[in-house]
Amino acid sequence: MEQKELWLTSLIVDNPQEGFELAIKLSRMGVKSTQPDIEVLKKLRKDYSNSASGLTAASHVIAVNFQTISAANEYWKK
Amino acid sequence: MEQKELWLTSLIVDNPQEGFELAIKLSRMGVKSTQPDIEVLKKLRKDYSNSASGLTAASHVIAVNFQTISAANEYWKK
Amino acid sequence: MEQKELWLTSLIVDNPQEGFELAIKLSRMGVKSTQPDIEVLKKLRKDYSNSASGLTAASHVIAVNFQTISAANEYWKK
Amino acid sequence: MEQKELWLTSLIVDNPQEGFELAIKLSRMGVKSTQPDIEVLKKLRKDYSNSASGLTAASHVIAVNFQTISAANEYWKK
Amino acid sequence: MEQKELWLTSLIVDNPQEGFELAIKLSRMGVKSTQPDIEVLKKLRKDYSNSASGLTAASHVIAVNFQTISAANEYWKK
Amino acid sequence: MEQKELWLTSLIVDNPQEGFELAIKLSRMGVKSTQPDIEVLKKLRKDYSNSASGLTAASHVIAVNFQTISAANEYWKK
Repeated sequence: MEQKELWLTSLIVDNPQEGFELAIKLSRMGVKSTQPDIEVLKKLRKDYSNSASGLTAASHVIAVNFQTISAANEYWKK
Repeated sequence: MEQKELWLTSLIVDNPQEGFELAIKLSRMGVKSTQPDIEVLKKLRKDYSNSASGLTAASHVIAVNFQTISAANEYWKK
Repeated sequence: MEQKELWLTSLIVDNPQEGFELAIKLSRMGVKSTQPDIEVLKKLRKDYSNSASGLTAASHVIAVNFQTISAANEYWKK
Repeated sequence: MEQKELWLTSLIVDNPQEGFELAIKLSRMGVKSTQPDIEVLKKLRKDYSNSASGLTAASHVIAVNFQTISAANEYWKK
Repeated sequence: MEQKELWLTSLIVDNPQEGFELAIKLSRMGVKSTQPDIEVLKKLRKDYSNSASGLTAASHVIAVNFQTISAANEYWKK
Repeated sequence: MEQKELWLTSLIVDNPQEGFELAIKLSRMGVKSTQPDIEVLKKLRKDYSNSASGLTAASHVIAVNFQTISAANEYWKK
């Protein structure tokens, strides 16, 4: 199972954009933790990436994770 | 893919309104990260921008991102 | 487009009630940023203001924005 | 319109339970700001108070508002 | 009505697990504040406890309340 | 009932990945607190793990819990 691999060693990244990309990654790993089968995920991805509500819901999860990452990086102010 | 371009170099903006606009941008980039095809996005946008629940959901994501941006800017109090 | 006008110059307001009203305004501007057509918004408003789940969802977005405004105002404790 | 009356002069309350009650009030005022007609609200209330998802959604909004009230009161630790 | 009884005198608990249990209690009181009729609640509980989306929504509300309780207890670090 | 066992003695973990795994655990315990019957859970899990919206909702709950765990660990910066 994916989670046994080392994939999240730090929340600290160089800039907000890398932070946003890490937020996307966390959101996907949250999905993968529930459904580890890549083939099923690929099929489902096609569904929700063509659904307005599915895409908004995905963006919502990213926003929550981006909040965490941004706080961890003290908003890259320093 | 859009994310390879530099589009988010800082969370610091001059005032709350620019912060709100950045929150809108983050919300859209969250969508785009899942569905990068502009033509599909245009078609879906027409759908959810005519749906009360779709618009409320979009406003919710903006609110979460605005929380992050506002904290980053210490609420523009200084 | 509405957002070009100056409508959000500060998050600081005199008391919690004004803060709640500003949270309502932010929630509506989040909707308007996605659907700027006033006539469409009026029509949709009639729909969701008669739907229990639509009203709860609207109240949820207001709650998130009120969190931001309240933090900005240090909860009006001073 | 209800909001013109003074109904929220402070977020500070004596204990967590009063804070929870204030969170309930804020959640209802969020609904009322979108649908001020008491008769419509009464009718809708009957609907969602008999729906599991409606009740969970209502509890979710209360939880968000309780977060705000609790932070305002520094969690009643002092 | 249940809320008149004293049921929430403090957010401070001994350890994270008691905090999680308090978060569950707050989530249920949020539901009960909208639908105080125990018989209706029992019937609805059977519905949503057999629905995947209902259970996820319930877990979401608990997570929000656990955030509040955890902050109140300074994450039980001391 | 599961919650009587000791399963959450601390929110402090060694690194972000263990924090993410704890967030997954909290999300599942939130579900289990409402539906303790393992057989029902197994059946429902098959349903939502094959639903795009169910997986996104699960990832959302994990994101909220990960926020709590990350704050508890001061983002593993030290």
